[in-house]
Amino acid sequence: MVNSIHEECGVFGIYSDVTADVAVQTYLGLYALQHRGQEACGIVVNDKGVFSYHKDEGLVHDVFTREQLHKIGHGNIAVGHVRYSTTGAASRANIQPMVVRHMKGPLAIAHNGNLVNASELRHEYESRGGIFHSTNDSEVISYAITEMRLVMPSIEEAVEKAMEKLRGAYSLVIMSPKKLIAVRDPNGYRPLSLGKLGEQAFVIASETCAFDTIGAKFIRDVEPGEIVIIDEGGVRSIKTHVGKVKPSLCVFEYVYFARPDSVIAGSSVHKARLKAGEYLWEEYPVDADVVIGVPDSGLDAALGLSRASGIPYGVGFIKNRYVGRTFIQPTQTDRTDSVRIKLNALSGTVKDKRVILVDDSIVRGTTSRRIINLIREAGAKEIHVRVSSPPFKNPCFFGTDIDSRENLIACKMDLNGIRAQIGADTLGFLSIENVNRIAEGAGLTLCDACFSGNYNMSVPDELPKDKFEYKLT
Amino acid sequence: MVNSIHEECGVFGIYSDVTADVAVQTYLGLYALQHRGQEACGIVVNDKGVFSYHKDEGLVHDVFTREQLHKIGHGNIAVGHVRYSTTGAASRANIQPMVVRHMKGPLAIAHNGNLVNASELRHEYESRGGIFHSTNDSEVISYAITEMRLVMPSIEEAVEKAMEKLRGAYSLVIMSPKKLIAVRDPNGYRPLSLGKLGEQAFVIASETCAFDTIGAKFIRDVEPGEIVIIDEGGVRSIKTHVGKVKPSLCVFEYVYFARPDSVIAGSSVHKARLKAGEYLWEEYPVDADVVIGVPDSGLDAALGLSRASGIPYGVGFIKNRYVGRTFIQPTQTDRTDSVRIKLNALSGTVKDKRVILVDDSIVRGTTSRRIINLIREAGAKEIHVRVSSPPFKNPCFFGTDIDSRENLIACKMDLNGIRAQIGADTLGFLSIENVNRIAEGAGLTLCDACFSGNYNMSVPDELPKDKFEYKLT
Amino acid sequence: MVNSIHEECGVFGIYSDVTADVAVQTYLGLYALQHRGQEACGIVVNDKGVFSYHKDEGLVHDVFTREQLHKIGHGNIAVGHVRYSTTGAASRANIQPMVVRHMKGPLAIAHNGNLVNASELRHEYESRGGIFHSTNDSEVISYAITEMRLVMPSIEEAVEKAMEKLRGAYSLVIMSPKKLIAVRDPNGYRPLSLGKLGEQAFVIASETCAFDTIGAKFIRDVEPGEIVIIDEGGVRSIKTHVGKVKPSLCVFEYVYFARPDSVIAGSSVHKARLKAGEYLWEEYPVDADVVIGVPDSGLDAALGLSRASGIPYGVGFIKNRYVGRTFIQPTQTDRTDSVRIKLNALSGTVKDKRVILVDDSIVRGTTSRRIINLIREAGAKEIHVRVSSPPFKNPCFFGTDIDSRENLIACKMDLNGIRAQIGADTLGFLSIENVNRIAEGAGLTLCDACFSGNYNMSVPDELPKDKFEYKLT
Amino acid sequence: MVNSIHEECGVFGIYSDVTADVAVQTYLGLYALQHRGQEACGIVVNDKGVFSYHKDEGLVHDVFTREQLHKIGHGNIAVGHVRYSTTGAASRANIQPMVVRHMKGPLAIAHNGNLVNASELRHEYESRGGIFHSTNDSEVISYAITEMRLVMPSIEEAVEKAMEKLRGAYSLVIMSPKKLIAVRDPNGYRPLSLGKLGEQAFVIASETCAFDTIGAKFIRDVEPGEIVIIDEGGVRSIKTHVGKVKPSLCVFEYVYFARPDSVIAGSSVHKARLKAGEYLWEEYPVDADVVIGVPDSGLDAALGLSRASGIPYGVGFIKNRYVGRTFIQPTQTDRTDSVRIKLNALSGTVKDKRVILVDDSIVRGTTSRRIINLIREAGAKEIHVRVSSPPFKNPCFFGTDIDSRENLIACKMDLNGIRAQIGADTLGFLSIENVNRIAEGAGLTLCDACFSGNYNMSVPDELPKDKFEYKLT
Repeated sequence: MVNSIHEECGVFGIYSDVTADVAVQTYLGLYALQHRGQEACGIVVNDKGVFSYHKDEGLVHDVFTREQLHKIGHGNIAVGHVRYSTTGAASRANIQPMVVRHMKGPLAIAHNGNLVNASELRHEYESRGGIFHSTNDSEVISYAITEMRLVMPSIEEAVEKAMEKLRGAYSLVIMSPKKLIAVRDPNGYRPLSLGKLGEQAFVIASETCAFDTIGAKFIRDVEPGEIVIIDEGGVRSIKTHVGKVKPSLCVFEYVYFARPDSVIAGSSVHKARLKAGEYLWEEYPVDADVVIGVPDSGLDAALGLSRASGIPYGVGFIKNRYVGRTFIQPTQTDRTDSVRIKLNALSGTVKDKRVILVDDSIVRGTTSRRIINLIREAGAKEIHVRVSSPPFKNPCFFGTDIDSRENLIACKMDLNGIRAQIGADTLGFLSIENVNRIAEGAGLTLCDACFSGNYNMSVPDELPKDKFEYKLT
Repeated sequence: MVNSIHEECGVFGIYSDVTADVAVQTYLGLYALQHRGQEACGIVVNDKGVFSYHKDEGLVHDVFTREQLHKIGHGNIAVGHVRYSTTGAASRANIQPMVVRHMKGPLAIAHNGNLVNASELRHEYESRGGIFHSTNDSEVISYAITEMRLVMPSIEEAVEKAMEKLRGAYSLVIMSPKKLIAVRDPNGYRPLSLGKLGEQAFVIASETCAFDTIGAKFIRDVEPGEIVIIDEGGVRSIKTHVGKVKPSLCVFEYVYFARPDSVIAGSSVHKARLKAGEYLWEEYPVDADVVIGVPDSGLDAALGLSRASGIPYGVGFIKNRYVGRTFIQPTQTDRTDSVRIKLNALSGTVKDKRVILVDDSIVRGTTSRRIINLIREAGAKEIHVRVSSPPFKNPCFFGTDIDSRENLIACKMDLNGIRAQIGADTLGFLSIENVNRIAEGAGLTLCDACFSGNYNMSVPDELPKDKFEYKLT
Repeated sequence: MVNSIHEECGVFGIYSDVTADVAVQTYLGLYALQHRGQEACGIVVNDKGVFSYHKDEGLVHDVFTREQLHKIGHGNIAVGHVRYSTTGAASRANIQPMVVRHMKGPLAIAHNGNLVNASELRHEYESRGGIFHSTNDSEVISYAITEMRLVMPSIEEAVEKAMEKLRGAYSLVIMSPKKLIAVRDPNGYRPLSLGKLGEQAFVIASETCAFDTIGAKFIRDVEPGEIVIIDEGGVRSIKTHVGKVKPSLCVFEYVYFARPDSVIAGSSVHKARLKAGEYLWEEYPVDADVVIGVPDSGLDAALGLSRASGIPYGVGFIKNRYVGRTFIQPTQTDRTDSVRIKLNALSGTVKDKRVILVDDSIVRGTTSRRIINLIREAGAKEIHVRVSSPPFKNPCFFGTDIDSRENLIACKMDLNGIRAQIGADTLGFLSIENVNRIAEGAGLTLCDACFSGNYNMSVPDELPKDKFEYKLT
Repeated sequence: MVNSIHEECGVFGIYSDVTADVAVQTYLGLYALQHRGQEACGIVVNDKGVFSYHKDEGLVHDVFTREQLHKIGHGNIAVGHVRYSTTGAASRANIQPMVVRHMKGPLAIAHNGNLVNASELRHEYESRGGIFHSTNDSEVISYAITEMRLVMPSIEEAVEKAMEKLRGAYSLVIMSPKKLIAVRDPNGYRPLSLGKLGEQAFVIASETCAFDTIGAKFIRDVEPGEIVIIDEGGVRSIKTHVGKVKPSLCVFEYVYFARPDSVIAGSSVHKARLKAGEYLWEEYPVDADVVIGVPDSGLDAALGLSRASGIPYGVGFIKNRYVGRTFIQPTQTDRTDSVRIKLNALSGTVKDKRVILVDDSIVRGTTSRRIINLIREAGAKEIHVRVSSPPFKNPCFFGTDIDSRENLIACKMDLNGIRAQIGADTLGFLSIENVNRIAEGAGLTLCDACFSGNYNMSVPDELPKDKFEYKLT
C-alpha cells in the first residue's frame, strides 16, 4: 500500500480509420492504467501527420482538463503514457511519450520497461554526435530506430532491426505519421494487448482493463518479440523475434501489479491472486477465527485463503477513499501518520480474534509493522501474517522499482527476524515454487529474478539509476 | 456509488490546554470525514482570541496545502467543516465554518444538519434589520445565538436559549474566544462524538473514525439535546434539552452514510451493515452461485448475506482507485461513461453464474441499470438484486440530499416495474421493519421518514431549497 | 513609485435598459481603475434580481478569466470594485462589492472611502444583535441602509436616511434588485462620476478614465451629498444632503492619485500636475541643465517645471515595463534591489549635468534616497529635488493609506534634515498655499489635512486600523 | 505598441568564482530583458557539473516563484533566456535554454537570432541519424557544436569550428560543465555584452540594462565574430571569425528594440532615438502646436523632434500601467478595444491643437489608425504623423518577427495611400539615409534589409516559418 514495489509505466495507443476524438479515448485508457504510474502523463495526437501533444507531472485527471484535451484536438492516431519514475529523474524532460523529429518525420514513443544496455547504447550514439534531452530509455530507443530507418525502407523494418540492439524489457507503442506500432521485447517482460473499438479503431494497451473502460474488445496479447503494425491496411505482424527466447513475464505483473480485472496471456489476474491465497493456506495452515486482507492489494489473496481454509473472510480495515497526495507523507515521522490516515482497523472484526492477515509483499517492513500494530490495538488476540509473494532479495533491471538491497528487510534478516521485527505471531511467505505453479496453471513462464536471483540475461553489476542525471525541476 | 444519496456535512473541533498545531489535527480529522462532504472545506484556528481561517471549494488535501496550514498557524482551539452542498448554492459564501463577529467577539460555527424553520427565522431576523451573506443555516444559527447572547451571561447559556428556537437537525461545533462548544439537536438526527487526544486535548467529531485517524480515544457520544462545553475548566455539560423527545437518529447515518469503522451510539456501523445483509437473505432467499457487492457501499451487506446464506462471497467489480473529478461527468451522456470508467466487472467471478448483487440503495435507477448491465455483459446467467435499504419515497428535511419525488424511481413505479427498469431477474429491498430491528439491536431509534413518511416533527409542505438563492460562482 | 501613499479603492457600476454583457463592461471599467487598488477585486451581476458574483485577491486581469466572466453571465445591472486594503485585513471576507441579503432582497455595495464613526456604528449594530463577517465599512453601511429600509418605502430613501448616520468619506455604488444607486458623501472626499454608454446604458465610476476605456461619454460628477438613482425610469437625483457642508475633495485625488487622463469637477488632472510643476519652479528656482521626473507620477510636474523654467525636459529614468509582483520585495533588504529592478537612470541625460529631479511625494524617504543615488551614480553633478506636494505630517481618516507618524520622514526632521537624509543638493516641497491655488483655479476646495492638520470634521484620536481584526488568510 | 515588430529573444549568463545565488542574478537579469521576449523563459544552474533547470511559458516573474528559484538552487554558473516565438511554435519543447547531454557531458544553450541555413543543417544531421525534439535553432546549433566536439579538444574550439557551418544571426550563451561561453555571429546582428559583478563574477547579457539592474559594471561588447570564454582561468577570447565581414547590427536593435537605457557599441540607445526625432523634423518640418509620442516607443523621438523644432513637448496619451495579458486581445474585434483599453488620449494636450504625433513604426496600419482616431476624438485640429523608421517592405531572416508581405501596409500602398488609410493629415517616415547617419554617428554599420532589401548574405526565397511544425500545446 505504502512503501511498496512500484510499476513504472503504462502505455496506450489508438488507430482509427477516421478522424475522431482519439485524445479522449486515450485519456480514458490512461485513466484505467493510472495504477501503473502516477507521477506524470502525456498524450500525443496525430492529425494527418501533424503531432499535437501535452505532457505534465500529475495524475491523468489533473493534467488533462477538458480545455487541454480540446487543445490537442482530433486526429486518427494517438499514443499516451502514464509514468512512475524509475530510470531518470521525475522531470518534465523525461515525461513520455517522447516526441521527436527524425529524417522521416515526427515520431512519438511510449515505453514501459527498462533496457539493460541503455548506457552502452547512449554512449554509442553520443560518440557519433547524438545529443540527449532526457535520461529515459525512450530516447535511446528513438536513436536506435532512427539509425535503422536510415537504411531500412519502412518504420516497421527499422523497428525490427533496432530490436537486435535493444536488450532488456520494453513494451512500446510507437506512432509515425501514418502508423501505430506496438512492440514487445522477446522475453515479454511487460504485458501489451491488442483490442478493437467499434468497427473503425484498434487499440493497444498495457492492460486489458483499459479496453473495458472505453468499451473496446480484447483481441489478443501482443506476443513476446512481436511487432504489430496498424495502418490504413489494417493490422499486420512481424514475428522475426518471436520465440527466440523463452518468455519470462515479470512475476510482479501477473501476480501483483496488474489490475485484478486485467487478463494477461489469457488468464485472469484476479484468479491468480485467489490461487496465491489458496497456496498460502496449503503452505502455512494455522488455527484462526478470521481472514483479513490489507486493502487493496491483499484482499484477493485473503479471499482465496478464506475459501481454501473455510475460515470466515472479514473486513479488517477501512481505507480512506479520499487518499490523495496529502503532504503528510515525505518525512519518516509523517509516514507513521500516513498509515493511520489511510487505514483504520475494524475492531468489530478482529477484537479477541485469532487473525490471519494477508498482504501482497513485505519490502522494508516498516509499513507492515504499523499495520500489524493497528490490528493489535484493535484487540486481535493472535496475528498470523501471510504474504502472497516470496521475500525480495535481488534488484530488478527490467523496470520494477525495487528498493536497493540495504533497504530490503529480507536481505538483512531471516524469517524469524522479520516476524519479530514486524510484530507478527507467525509469518509465512508464498514459496517461489508456488508462484511458478500459479503461472504454469495459466500457461505462463515468469521472470522471478527478484526472488531467485536467476536473471534471464546478463545484467549489469549494479543499477545505474540516474548516474548521469542532471537535476531537473 | 454515483447518483446516490448524499450526506451533507462533517464537523470537527479540538480544544487543547496548550498552544499546538491544532490546524493539522483538524486537517487530519476532516480528512477522515471527507466521505461526508467533498465540495468544500474550511478550518478556523483560535490563537488567544484571534481567529485565523481558510476556506475554499475542493477536497481537504487540495484546499489545505502545507503552506496554507502554516499560514493559519497555531492556536489552542480549532473547528473544521467538510461540506456537500444541500441548502444554499455551492458557493464560496456558504463554505463553513461561518466566522462572524458579534457583540461579544468572534464566533465560528460548523453545522451538520438542516433546520426546518430556517426560512421563518431568517425572515424574523431580517425584519429586525439583520443582513445575510450566505444562504446556509449556520448564519441563521449565528443570529439565534447572538440574539440570546445579548441577554444571557455566557455563550453556552445563549446556545441553550437559542435551541428553543431552532427546529430540525443540527449537530454543531461552536468556537468562541475561549471555549469549544458541541451541540446536538434533541432528536439527535446527526451523530456527534467526544474524544480525548493525549492528556491535553479534547476533540469533537461527526464520526469516531476521525478520532482513530489522529490517535484520539473515543469517550462518548454527545447526547441528543446536550450541550458540551470545553474550556480551561475542562469538559462540562448542559442537559436541559436532553430527553425531551424520543431520539431519532437519521437512518442513513447508521445504516449507510457513516464510515463502517465509525461507532455510533456504542454500536459498530460495519456490524449493522453485515446485519442488513443477513436480513436481506432472510427476506429474499434465492438459489445462487455467488454474492457480490457494489463497491464500496454494498460490500459489507454482501458479505453479511454471503455468511447468512452460505453462498460464496466474490469480488464482482474492480473500482478505479484514481477516480477523481474527471470532467467526464456532468452531462447525461457522460454519466454512461462514468460508471464504466469507475467500475469494471470481473468476468471470472460472474461468468455463467447465478449472481446475487447487493447495493445499498436505488435512487433514480439509472446507475443500477448500468451496473447490472456490466455484470450481464460479463456473462452472469442470473442477476438477483438485493438492496440494503427500503425504497425512497419521501423527501428529507433534515440534511440528507434525497432527490425530488419526480426523480425517485420508487415514487414512479412498483417493485416489478423497478426490477424490469434496471434489468434484474429478481429484486428485493430491505423492509422498514428489518431496518428498525437492526437499530433496536443496537439500542437506537431511527428517523425513517424517507421510507415511511413518518416525520417526527411538522415539516414544510415542500423543500425550500435555494429559493432565495443568488447565484454564487 | 514604491513606498508611497496608496489610494484604497475604485468603484464602478452600470445600468443597461436591456440584458447585456455588463460583466465585461465592468471588467474593462475596473481595468481602467486598477491604479486605485491592486490587492483584490470583484464584480456582481444582476440578472432579473438574481445576483451572480466573483471576487478574489489579485489584479483584475488575473481574477477575471474569460471563463470566470462567462460564469457570472449577463444581466442588466452590475457593480465592481478594486481594492487596496486599508481598514480591514487583506482578506477574502473583506473583498468588495459586499453582497448581502436583507429584508427586501439582495443588495450589493461597493465603497470607496473611510468612515470615521465606523466603530461606533458597528458597536451599535452589534449591540442590537447584528453580526459581522468582515471588518470593512461596507458592511457597516449595509446595516445602516437595512435599518432605514425597515421604515422607508424605497431603497433610495433608506440611503438618504442612512446618510444622516454615516460620517466620513464614502463614494458608493449600490445595486438593488431593480436599481443602481450612486452616493457621494456631503464633503465629496472621493470622486464619483456619471456617464452614458451608447443609448441604453448609464455608468458610474470613480474616475472618468473608466468611461474613456469603454467608449462611454462623461455626463457630470455626482455632487457631494448627492444620491443618483438609475432604474427603468431613467436617472433621478436626491439632493437633500447637497450643500450642507463645504466640499473638500481629498487633495490626493486631485493632485496625485487620479489618472492624469481623468477629469475631476470639470478640471483636468494632468493640467493640475503641470501647474504643480510651474509653482514648484516659482517657489524654488535654481540654475540647472535638465529637468527629469520620477516615473510615472513625477513626469507631469517635471514637464510643467521645464516649461515654466525653460530648462530642457529630459528622460532621466527607464522604468521596467514588466514590473509585476516580483517576490524581490517584501523584506527591507529586498527593497534596495526593488528600486534598481524597476528604475534605471539614463546616464546620457544626467551625466555631468545639474539636474532638477521632480517627484510627487516623499513619505519615508528611503525610496527617494535610492532614486537620488541612481542619478548620482549615473554622473549627475548636482541634484535639486522638487516635490509636487507639501510634507506629510498628519494621518488620514478618510481612506488614504498614509503611514503612521513614526514612519513619516517629515514628522521626524526638518527640511534640511530630509535633504541630507535623501542626499539631495537642494530640496523644495510645494507649499500648501500653492496646492490650494491649483484647486481654486479649478473651482475646487480640498481637504489638505494630511499636510495642514485641519480636518473638516472631528476625527478619532488615533487610527483604529484593524483593531478588532481576526486574521484572515 | 500593439501589432508591431517583435524582438524574439534575450540571453543572459553568469560565471561566479564561488558558489552563489546565480539563479537569482539570472532571474533579475532576465527581468531587465523581459522586453525582448514575453512568451516563455528559462534558467539553468550549474552546480559542479550538475545542471538544474526550470522553463515554462509566461513572464519571468510568473514562471519563477521564490520556491521555484529555490528548487533550482545555487551554483557557480547559470544561463537564462526570454523568448518571443519566431521560428518554432510557442511550445514548451522550444523554450530555451536548450539543455542537452552530449558525449562530453551536459550543455545548455541560449540563443538570440535566426540561422538562414537551419533547415539545411537540420536535414544534414537528421540524415546522419540525429533526432530533434524542438523546432528551434538552438538544437541545430547544439548538433553543430557536438559534431565538432567529437574531434576538437575543447568546447571553445568546437564552437569556433561550428561557426564555420552556422550562417545567419546568433548571439549565444553556452554553458558547459566548467565554462561559460559567449558567441556573436561575424555580422553581429544581435547585441551581446560582457560585464563584471563585484570581484568574483562575470556576466553576459543581450543588453547592458541587465547589468544595471543587478549592479554589474559594463566592460565591453562581445565583438562580432568573437568567442568569449569564462572559466576558472578568467576571461579569454577567440577572434578567428572577427573582422571577416563588415558588421551589420540589426537596425531594429539599435533604433527600436533595445531598452533606451542600454548602450550598444558604446553608444546610447536613448540618444539614437532623440536623434531620429531631430532628423524627422529636418525631413518633414510642419507648423504645429504640440509634439506627442506614442507610449512608450515613440516618446524619445518625440522629445528629440520637440527639441529640434522648438515646438512644445506634450503628454498625449496615458497608458494603463496594469496592462497584462487581458483576454480582450485575440480576435480582430477585440483588438479595437485593446488600443482603447491600453491608451487614452489626453484631451487637454491636443484639443484644438495642431499635433505632431511620433511613433516608431507602422506595420499593418490598423493600430496607427486607431491611435490617430483617439487623438482626433480628443479634439486635435491637425494630426501630422512622423514615424522614426522607414517603411517595412522586406522580410527579416535574422530573428525579427516582421509580418509577411501581405500584411505590411508599405507593400500594399504608397505614402499617400498609407496616410489616407491611417487618417493622418500629413505623414513622414524617417529615410534610410538618416537611419544610417544615426548609426554612423555612433560608429556602427547596420543591416537595413527590412527597409532596403539589401541582405548581407544570400537568403532563402521565402521564410520557412514553422514549415515542419508539429503542433505543440
